[in-house]
Amino acid sequence: MKLYDLELSGNCYKIRLFLSLLDINYELVTVDFMAGQHKSPEFLQLNPLGEIPILEDDGLVLRDSQAILVYLAKKHGGETWLPSDPAGMAQVTQWLSTAANEIARGPADARRNQKFGFAVNLEAAQQKAESIIKTIEQHLIPYKWLALGRPTIADIACFPYIALAPEGGVSLDKYPAINQWCDRLKKLPNFIEMPGITAN
Amino acid sequence: MKLYDLELSGNCYKIRLFLSLLDINYELVTVDFMAGQHKSPEFLQLNPLGEIPILEDDGLVLRDSQAILVYLAKKHGGETWLPSDPAGMAQVTQWLSTAANEIARGPADARRNQKFGFAVNLEAAQQKAESIIKTIEQHLIPYKWLALGRPTIADIACFPYIALAPEGGVSLDKYPAINQWCDRLKKLPNFIEMPGITAN
Repeated sequence: MKLYDLELSGNCYKIRLFLSLLDINYELVTVDFMAGQHKSPEFLQLNPLGEIPILEDDGLVLRDSQAILVYLAKKHGGETWLPSDPAGMAQVTQWLSTAANEIARGPADARRNQKFGFAVNLEAAQQKAESIIKTIEQHLIPYKWLALGRPTIADIACFPYIALAPEGGVSLDKYPAINQWCDRLKKLPNFIEMPGITAN
Repeated sequence: MKLYDLELSGNCYKIRLFLSLLDINYELVTVDFMAGQHKSPEFLQLNPLGEIPILEDDGLVLRDSQAILVYLAKKHGGETWLPSDPAGMAQVTQWLSTAANEIARGPADARRNQKFGFAVNLEAAQQKAESIIKTIEQHLIPYKWLALGRPTIADIACFPYIALAPEGGVSLDKYPAINQWCDRLKKLPNFIEMPGITAN
């Protein structure tokens, strides 16, 4: 199994984190993002969208961090991280969409601007970040995890860019339930760090 | 089964279309979008994100059109629309993320501005629309369907806002493979229309 990776990408970190939680060995291929390697013809053959992470496994090439989480959960996680009953699977999928939409447009976009200088409407991204973070805070007040009362790939998909929100100028100080949820994630066996996310 | 719905929403149409293809009866509840009913306290109890569609079934309340497609495919579609093997499920999920991210930010946002007057950076949305439509066009030149060589919820998730792109000022005239794919979808048994998408 081969992961095309960038250390500072929250989407790549999702996959590194989940592979570590699953205790799976893999080959890490660092993509030279600054040199635009992800937009090279060879790379666009792997992912026409020109984005990382990409996972290669047994001849299968997968783009998109949420799809890779689904693949790894189904292949190596049994029923734990993504159950196969319709209601359970759909409740987890709700949060995969939140990661791909509201979290991408909010805290992830704000960080892309503030940390990497990408052209982004910073004010709009920070407003969207505040909005989704407030919604998740309310959701987490009665619950320990995003879905099904246990850690699932819903948590893995949403955690990185929520935890990295301060790098986009969005403070998490006002959100105790989110901070406790992050602490819970950091206590999972085999949790790993990335720059900006430390294991307390 | 109860669907909270808005006729002009491409995300709601996804669900109406899929329920029709599956030949499932359900109750339609029209949400008064113009009066802001989706942001009312009662509605925010159903979906804290204040968006439609929402599906209620057997006491389960689901938000997010992609999650609802997953639920219906698993509950009523056997292995056809969303297979349970890791590779197949992940290949479909790639396109659910594309619907939630690139298509939402591109053609859907451009239409929200042009048809409904929402504050959107129109130029950026139209550029993103062109980019993802070009990528999907290239993908569809050798393939008839987005994933697995057959119709899946990948197609249902991506179809509405691609087909509605002209309502956001993005022409599909230059994309023959996309037009043929739309025609293929329109020939599925029990296909239904929505304003802006006619069955040829």
